[in-house]
Amino acid sequence: MAVFAGGVPWRWLGLAGLVLTLSLEAVARYVRGRRRPLCEVLFFPVPVTCPEPALSPGLSCPCPLPHTDSALSRLLRRILAAQRSLELCVFTVSCAPLARAVLQLHLRGVRVRVITDSDYMAASGSQIGALRSAGVIVRHNQTSGFMHHKFVIMDRTVVMTGSLNWTMQAIHTNKENVLISDDQTFVKAYLEEFERLWEEYDPATYDFFPDKDQK
Amino acid sequence: MAVFAGGVPWRWLGLAGLVLTLSLEAVARYVRGRRRPLCEVLFFPVPVTCPEPALSPGLSCPCPLPHTDSALSRLLRRILAAQRSLELCVFTVSCAPLARAVLQLHLRGVRVRVITDSDYMAASGSQIGALRSAGVIVRHNQTSGFMHHKFVIMDRTVVMTGSLNWTMQAIHTNKENVLISDDQTFVKAYLEEFERLWEEYDPATYDFFPDKDQK
Repeated sequence: MAVFAGGVPWRWLGLAGLVLTLSLEAVARYVRGRRRPLCEVLFFPVPVTCPEPALSPGLSCPCPLPHTDSALSRLLRRILAAQRSLELCVFTVSCAPLARAVLQLHLRGVRVRVITDSDYMAASGSQIGALRSAGVIVRHNQTSGFMHHKFVIMDRTVVMTGSLNWTMQAIHTNKENVLISDDQTFVKAYLEEFERLWEEYDPATYDFFPDKDQK
Repeated sequence: MAVFAGGVPWRWLGLAGLVLTLSLEAVARYVRGRRRPLCEVLFFPVPVTCPEPALSPGLSCPCPLPHTDSALSRLLRRILAAQRSLELCVFTVSCAPLARAVLQLHLRGVRVRVITDSDYMAASGSQIGALRSAGVIVRHNQTSGFMHHKFVIMDRTVVMTGSLNWTMQAIHTNKENVLISDDQTFVKAYLEEFERLWEEYDPATYDFFPDKDQK
């Protein structure tokens, strides 16, 4: 029998190589299959349901609202899954259950940063005051033009964007969408936009009378 | 030398299998590498520039506006790349260059379908009338609550979504984003939403006096 240096037969060396390669390919395919990218889209409006199953899991709620799952409860759970950081960049924030989720993260020690639009943050029902009172840092535009984004980044790994303002009307009445992705190209682009705006809206650089010098 | 039935040495059979498997893996990696998914995000506002380089490529324009590239011209080129179909589902459409791009597609034989919000389609500056006059089919909500989506699907293969309404203020003044993806999970979800709304807003089912029976 023809043998390789060291006494290993050629036939075994060839077959072992073949088996090893096929095994590695199978493992690679298995890992790729398990690590499925996050691609989810939530559509609104949804009927009014109780937010407690998402906000306080494990506690039973006696309220008369339905306690069923909805796009809102899935949105709440996605936000509450943040462990380290949350960047919220949303035009209007007046939906109390969503603001409660943000507050929970803040109280749990997650680094929460909020950017919103100056025209709407003091509007009736806005939750921005409640977030600020609890110690969440909020920055906003001071120039003309709306800060019209509606995106959120969780743990620098997942981004949500779409048409949904954080209002009760948007959630329960309007046709709206929220795309959720963990594609790092998207996450990086939105993180860079957030950091740009965070610097631009730094209160240390406020000029409350931008037209003063022109008069 | 030990030989396999048919006279082929074991060593060659094993090595040939190894080489074949490694080659197939290399080809698979090459193909995966070349077929890069489309992951793009456009951010606004952008300065006012001439839209003609995107709308009429090859023609020189004498206007005094800058003829440079921008997020708007990239958005226009993405839309104009549609070959077969365009589903437009946008709250407000008053940006003339974007409406011209849609009109070009329609005149070129692309199947264009538009869904928009009833409250804003007759507002000053709206381009919906011009699209309808040219023969583009437009459907709209007739109930309370906004048709607040801002998404577009090209050739059933690429989807755009985000905060951007198709208005000049949004493009040139507001902070806005448009995410562009050819991920088929996303495309399918938005196509299904479009078809749902297309049926829901079918004029054959209009009830212009929804509260009539309640009075």
